[in-house]
Amino acid sequence: MADRSVTLPQARIEALEDVATRLRIDSIRATTAAKSGHPTSAASAADLVAATFFDAMRFDPDHPRAVTSDRFVLSKGHAAPVLYAAWAEVGAIKREELLTLRQIDSDLEGHPTPRLPFVDVGTGSLGQGLGVGLGLALGARLAGSEARVWVLLGDGETAEGSVWEAVQLAAHRAAENLIAVVDVNALGQSGPTMLRHDLDAYRRRFAAFGWRVQTIDGHDMPAIVTALRRARRSRGAPSVVIARTVKGKGIEGVEGLEGWHGKPLPPDAAERAIAALESRLHHVPRPPIQRPRGRHQAPAAPATTGSRPDALTGAVATREAYGQALVRLGAVDARVVALDGDVKNSTYAERFFEAYPARSVEGFIAEQNMVSVAAGLAAQGLLPFASSFACFLTRAADQIRMAGISRSNVKFCGSHAGVSIGEDGPSQMGLEDLALFRAVPDAVVLYPADGVATDACVQLAGEYRGIVYIRTTRMKTDPVYPADEAFTIGGLKVVRARDDDRLTVVAAGITLHEALAAADELAAKGIFARIVDLYCLKPVDRTALVEAARATGGALLTVEDHYAEGGLGAAVAEALSDTGIVVHRLAVREIPHSGSPRQLLERYGIGRAAIVRSVDEILAQGPR
Amino acid sequence: MADRSVTLPQARIEALEDVATRLRIDSIRATTAAKSGHPTSAASAADLVAATFFDAMRFDPDHPRAVTSDRFVLSKGHAAPVLYAAWAEVGAIKREELLTLRQIDSDLEGHPTPRLPFVDVGTGSLGQGLGVGLGLALGARLAGSEARVWVLLGDGETAEGSVWEAVQLAAHRAAENLIAVVDVNALGQSGPTMLRHDLDAYRRRFAAFGWRVQTIDGHDMPAIVTALRRARRSRGAPSVVIARTVKGKGIEGVEGLEGWHGKPLPPDAAERAIAALESRLHHVPRPPIQRPRGRHQAPAAPATTGSRPDALTGAVATREAYGQALVRLGAVDARVVALDGDVKNSTYAERFFEAYPARSVEGFIAEQNMVSVAAGLAAQGLLPFASSFACFLTRAADQIRMAGISRSNVKFCGSHAGVSIGEDGPSQMGLEDLALFRAVPDAVVLYPADGVATDACVQLAGEYRGIVYIRTTRMKTDPVYPADEAFTIGGLKVVRARDDDRLTVVAAGITLHEALAAADELAAKGIFARIVDLYCLKPVDRTALVEAARATGGALLTVEDHYAEGGLGAAVAEALSDTGIVVHRLAVREIPHSGSPRQLLERYGIGRAAIVRSVDEILAQGPR
Repeated sequence: MADRSVTLPQARIEALEDVATRLRIDSIRATTAAKSGHPTSAASAADLVAATFFDAMRFDPDHPRAVTSDRFVLSKGHAAPVLYAAWAEVGAIKREELLTLRQIDSDLEGHPTPRLPFVDVGTGSLGQGLGVGLGLALGARLAGSEARVWVLLGDGETAEGSVWEAVQLAAHRAAENLIAVVDVNALGQSGPTMLRHDLDAYRRRFAAFGWRVQTIDGHDMPAIVTALRRARRSRGAPSVVIARTVKGKGIEGVEGLEGWHGKPLPPDAAERAIAALESRLHHVPRPPIQRPRGRHQAPAAPATTGSRPDALTGAVATREAYGQALVRLGAVDARVVALDGDVKNSTYAERFFEAYPARSVEGFIAEQNMVSVAAGLAAQGLLPFASSFACFLTRAADQIRMAGISRSNVKFCGSHAGVSIGEDGPSQMGLEDLALFRAVPDAVVLYPADGVATDACVQLAGEYRGIVYIRTTRMKTDPVYPADEAFTIGGLKVVRARDDDRLTVVAAGITLHEALAAADELAAKGIFARIVDLYCLKPVDRTALVEAARATGGALLTVEDHYAEGGLGAAVAEALSDTGIVVHRLAVREIPHSGSPRQLLERYGIGRAAIVRSVDEILAQGPR
Repeated sequence: MADRSVTLPQARIEALEDVATRLRIDSIRATTAAKSGHPTSAASAADLVAATFFDAMRFDPDHPRAVTSDRFVLSKGHAAPVLYAAWAEVGAIKREELLTLRQIDSDLEGHPTPRLPFVDVGTGSLGQGLGVGLGLALGARLAGSEARVWVLLGDGETAEGSVWEAVQLAAHRAAENLIAVVDVNALGQSGPTMLRHDLDAYRRRFAAFGWRVQTIDGHDMPAIVTALRRARRSRGAPSVVIARTVKGKGIEGVEGLEGWHGKPLPPDAAERAIAALESRLHHVPRPPIQRPRGRHQAPAAPATTGSRPDALTGAVATREAYGQALVRLGAVDARVVALDGDVKNSTYAERFFEAYPARSVEGFIAEQNMVSVAAGLAAQGLLPFASSFACFLTRAADQIRMAGISRSNVKFCGSHAGVSIGEDGPSQMGLEDLALFRAVPDAVVLYPADGVATDACVQLAGEYRGIVYIRTTRMKTDPVYPADEAFTIGGLKVVRARDDDRLTVVAAGITLHEALAAADELAAKGIFARIVDLYCLKPVDRTALVEAARATGGALLTVEDHYAEGGLGAAVAEALSDTGIVVHRLAVREIPHSGSPRQLLERYGIGRAAIVRSVDEILAQGPR
């Protein structure tokens, strides 16, 4: 247990105890009114939250997202009622509003979302808060801010590997401004946690990963205050306070019992519990909020990038063009930060790492944490670009899902898309990444085919407020567009067209080059095909697709280096499903094998020969 | 360093050193011939692999997948050449075959896949091998086998949180038959690893998680043999051998250098390196393979389940029906194993846990590891059913992707699908799970609407060899089918039909009930709609959909509690894209809010009122 040498004025302790009691009362009231929710998970954390908000934190209630303001991340998002109650104590929410918890017109949702000004990211998918906290901490450090980041974790969620990804990177980065508090109430949803109340096991684990550890009784206010103050002063490494707590603490008849996870109290029991809690109030006035020194620094406003360098206009791999474009963007926009998962030499994020080391975060082989850190950086007003192999971004699918719910301003780049990567085999091929990102609401999905388009996509990503996914190709490809070509979110390019086109082929990225080669072969036979570059898969330009189809016999042929489900062909089929336009689709329909890119493109039916064959067959069927 | 007290015959040491030298030679030859691959990653592990295969392991080369046979999992899958070379030493592959590495007609792919009889699961997405190994170990224990599971990890991949998920569960389960070997060569792909050669940091971490740890020089054969033998004898906890190695060890001019990850040697350099290695051979005969005692036990053959109990035929939540059906299947099929991520009381997997505790694995809040363990159990001939909230299965998207590549016989159940879960909010709603599972090749995707259909889906999942996803609903729903109704993979049900139907509504799960309610309202107005239950979203019954559409004016209306991308509507639009049939789609198109199920179904346009409105609009437009 942390030593208690620091003597604290009794009045302050009692004031904090009163805050904690009110947090419990409000959590019970709100969940009973909502007839659902997690009062017992709120109760175990109430003392920790009270001390964090009213003794440990330095924050600005009027600008909770200021980079100079300490941040609080409720990683155990199901304890939302205690978070809302704390902000009511702060004065950011009216106390009566707490009773609208979980109602359809209230922003006090079942689990926190950034619809609330003091919530940086949505939580509720466990094990993600610490990585987000690390991103917030690195962002504060980057801005020269003294602010700390406080993350409250549940004990059960420390079973998530993503927590240990954040733990090790925080230690590696010596993130002394990151403080974790673990609410060890020993009870999960369906039974006891793995470690129950073995606080020493938690101590050993965090210590082994290089953290400063304190273990305390999480309901002993002087101990909590002392530990949090010490953590705040800690230097050279991140700190964790492991707090032994009781689930449902302070709620009579429920305290420490199994079977009460996620269950509100019935009205009568709630009234009894609230009465008992009220009788414990010392009626000492609430401690004042401690505001930070310094002012909010607005993120640097971007300037415009100059004209595209020759390096982007020749034959280049779009993954390499991505690296160059990111450097170009970083030169004019100080908000740009790059994140990598130990493949920066393959994604070419390396170029940015070399040019702007201070704005680069090597996340090592831990994609989940890379995405959470990016979400935290975005919540500090930065513009993070996280890149890996397209297939390895699936490792962070849940973090990407939560970034979507958080409306995080994070950009993703997935390289090595599809079978065209060649010999490395299926485990290295991104063949479901388009399906993953298309299913994120409001996300923009881009798939450039050459250096110029890639540069434009990176620029567009920087301008769009929200999640953007850019898919790049491993191999070098020929230039398609002149240096000054303009691209837009929601656009497409008709790359080749004649009045006597008999079919439209819709492709993107690597398959655009296959489609163009196929069009040449067909043209030699007197058969002309319109070629569309669907560089923006979401949102998709429905009108232009309809126009192209109608102009070429009412049919389209899509070709993609992706599985048949949820990718380019699906985007087109979904967009045109109510038009009666016929959409023929070429896609990868089985688990691919190792081989050369050319062999694989043809073996899986998405290469130039397959396209020619398919066009011939479609035209042979004649108009419908 | 592990003590060396055990004295080993020099001849055996030299024989093992010769094996290691040949593994290096073969790895260089194969990668140089392939002009790609990872010889330096193979070289750092060669001594460890030689000692594991020819001193530590007890296995049956003729039945490598026998439950009595030790298993070897190459978690660092990019070192595939050393794995293939080892099996060539064993005699399972002809040495000349090694030169076909990475060719399109060779099963020796860039990263290992189960196309090879001695590979249990595909590896190459790092950080998954230890969880698979734990599954193999638990499966062996379940069969009463003495077999051990040996997992070779790279140091870089220990940054993946999934490794620590496996580490903690293995300790919690006291999996003494699981032995991890970490090849600490200190170099990742794009730079040094986080811990470089700090072996003590690895020791502290594994020890803190309750493992037996030995640290050794990974190129000192006597030390390796001693450590592996001690690990084999270890009882009460899993063991890890942390081995300090040099990347490219034994390959002159490359040894220990950065910038050589994933690069083959040029032919001339390869010849020089091979000559130097050959000069080190002691020319001592290879040690014999040590075979296990006992015979291969075939998994129990399933009997047939009896008739469905009344509990399944009334109003029931399909998630609850899943739990009951799983118990029913488990009663007749001893291969059935259930896995949970601390939500078994919500998914109702709890029912199986209560009935068959010995065949139940509580994975706690660590979904990635739950899926890897399931893949390992399947590789022991078991029939694992892993369940969680649908949204939390996205946490394991990459493990599911690899299970697909591994053609693992794993079944998944995702509960709490869609906005119909209600007040908990978006972080708890599975709205992209159908897109995720549909993008897994050969996977079957099922979405039952009542208890009878759920029971049938669980039966079908057990009969199908491969990945099956079953989506369940949180709320109770009315019965739709009689107790004896038959269902098939690839089927659908026309639930309501008349000759004068004017439109077909395609729904599944919760939306089938909304569609039926809407049909009643429409019928009251004299408008009749055909209702299709698309309980199998993959493979989809294209013929029956076309038939229904043609019979009802050539149009369909799909309704789903899922985002508009990649789900039910997409499955139908994709399947019918080349038919000209018009597919109108109702789906969730924004990030939902908290609220009551009924409020949310209507607010997001997939409830009965929205369906009625949509049908009226479509019919008002008249036939196209």
